[in-house]
Amino acid sequence: MSRVYLDWNATAPVRDEARTAMIAALDVVGNPSSVHGEGRAAKSLVEKARGQVAAAFGADGADVIFVSSATEAAALALAGRGFVGAEVEHDAVGAWADPVLAVDCNGAVTVTDPARTALQLANSETGVVQVLPQGLAVVDATQAFGKIPVAFNWLECEMALISAHKLGGPKGIGALVLKRGTELAAQLKGGGQEMGRRAGTENVPGIAGFGAAATAAAAELDRGDWARVEEIRNILESTIAASAKETIFVGKAATRLPNTSCFAVPGWKGETQVMQMDLAGFAISAGSACSSGKVRASKVLTAMGYDEAIAQCAIRVSIGPTTSVEDVTRFAEAWLKAYKRHCERAA
Amino acid sequence: MSRVYLDWNATAPVRDEARTAMIAALDVVGNPSSVHGEGRAAKSLVEKARGQVAAAFGADGADVIFVSSATEAAALALAGRGFVGAEVEHDAVGAWADPVLAVDCNGAVTVTDPARTALQLANSETGVVQVLPQGLAVVDATQAFGKIPVAFNWLECEMALISAHKLGGPKGIGALVLKRGTELAAQLKGGGQEMGRRAGTENVPGIAGFGAAATAAAAELDRGDWARVEEIRNILESTIAASAKETIFVGKAATRLPNTSCFAVPGWKGETQVMQMDLAGFAISAGSACSSGKVRASKVLTAMGYDEAIAQCAIRVSIGPTTSVEDVTRFAEAWLKAYKRHCERAA
Repeated sequence: MSRVYLDWNATAPVRDEARTAMIAALDVVGNPSSVHGEGRAAKSLVEKARGQVAAAFGADGADVIFVSSATEAAALALAGRGFVGAEVEHDAVGAWADPVLAVDCNGAVTVTDPARTALQLANSETGVVQVLPQGLAVVDATQAFGKIPVAFNWLECEMALISAHKLGGPKGIGALVLKRGTELAAQLKGGGQEMGRRAGTENVPGIAGFGAAATAAAAELDRGDWARVEEIRNILESTIAASAKETIFVGKAATRLPNTSCFAVPGWKGETQVMQMDLAGFAISAGSACSSGKVRASKVLTAMGYDEAIAQCAIRVSIGPTTSVEDVTRFAEAWLKAYKRHCERAA
Repeated sequence: MSRVYLDWNATAPVRDEARTAMIAALDVVGNPSSVHGEGRAAKSLVEKARGQVAAAFGADGADVIFVSSATEAAALALAGRGFVGAEVEHDAVGAWADPVLAVDCNGAVTVTDPARTALQLANSETGVVQVLPQGLAVVDATQAFGKIPVAFNWLECEMALISAHKLGGPKGIGALVLKRGTELAAQLKGGGQEMGRRAGTENVPGIAGFGAAATAAAAELDRGDWARVEEIRNILESTIAASAKETIFVGKAATRLPNTSCFAVPGWKGETQVMQMDLAGFAISAGSACSSGKVRASKVLTAMGYDEAIAQCAIRVSIGPTTSVEDVTRFAEAWLKAYKRHCERAA
């Protein structure tokens, strides 16, 4: 049987539209900084993609600075600024923002000074969606963009972080979106690229892939495809809840991304579950991909008030528009089989 | 007639090997940080490419840190270190290194304190190759790697900068190569990628393309293909010299890259020549691509002692293994035609 990929929040499969755009971009030889025809052709691919990303992200009139990842966007937006955040932030934001803000049991963050705060729109591990106050310094929209409607121009923030590979674009390209006129010192210097905010020859194929993926993702959202994703996620959760009654579904009382399910069975380590499911043919995760391999409790869950013992037992299943009901029911069967073995051993 | 691309130092055409590797990598869905099978498959692409780049760059046993560009590698190697350099360095290095070192009329840099110095192996505008002292802090091998034999382990430096798109890999991926054990503080934080030196989900297709391109470039050098490149470059130069006798060939007395020709006709602006040649179907440049669009004298040439008036009149023709004798003779004809018009106007 073919494997089933249920780890879309770690990275989504590359969309056909992105693949096609990237392959076409590989044939455009020029350096976008060159003034000759080949250079201008490369430049026009970059600018087309910039418009596509801006349109898909509701950021017309804002500046879209292409960077190599949301992690780079976070460093560019946050480093040396003294912003604050919460423990639920991704480590790429947490590296720069003092985690002083309170988090409640549903994952909601209380913001006290928006202009000094970085806050995620959706959490990668739990899918919990924040109600964002206006005037935030930085919104980390990496996990939300492409999964729920979001428009930069409605967020009323200074800056936002996004990434291509979370919505079916290639890995290695992201963007920092900022209100026009926002001051931003370049961290990569030595060329005038990206309006002087980010030097270095542009990742033209990656940028072209991001643009195409963002357009396709926005169209998919508009068509309502993610309502079906939510139904399938809910089928998964109810199937599991019906047979494994002690399962804790994290963040279920909150508004969540339609595709994410984070759940824990006390006493059954998340890492063990990930390995067992991998052997059974299913890709899931425990915690965020970036801290995978480290067997430690999710700090997202401990910030929500869960014991370390429970936080260590959480797994994340994250799906997408190509995930079928059969995919999740097959997963639920395999998981419940492993769950029964776990219960027998534990008894 | 089809256009002729003679701006390989700005960026080289993507090799078939790189394209194939990238397209294959797009089908590997996993995040290299994920522990499941899909993640491990992605991780193995990254590690395979790391080995390919290390082998091609003669850096077995050294650390290869993948970054988004040589510009990022420069920032990672140089920022905040107080290194010195020379005016002939690329702006990406010049942004961080105090340009105090003397440059002679052949482009040679005199190094006084190697351990505090960043020095290029080859200049992107003139092709001039430096004789590198041992013990340099940073070698910028961006323009040399793939065009002349170079081995990190023979350079006896701490760190070296390289880029994929200069040798037929994709834009958007480069590497900082460093002696194992060299201390290096990450600038992108929040994940343990790249041995803790550079956080952010890896550009898997770009990295795979870099690996394949580096392998192909090394094989090409081994086969001696670049001797033919040099012959063709020399045909170009002698054709031009025969009919435009006042032409100054910059760095011709020095060891140069085999593919690069930088020449100036006093009184005929480089930017004008670039535009005229573009209209005639040839892509060349004036100065490095990164500072293109700015009509200013090349600081590389002024550092070598050329007047601003002459430096403004330089163009760069840079070719590669797929450039034919016909390509350069067609270019020389078109250029000489424009040169005659220039002389008539100037008379």
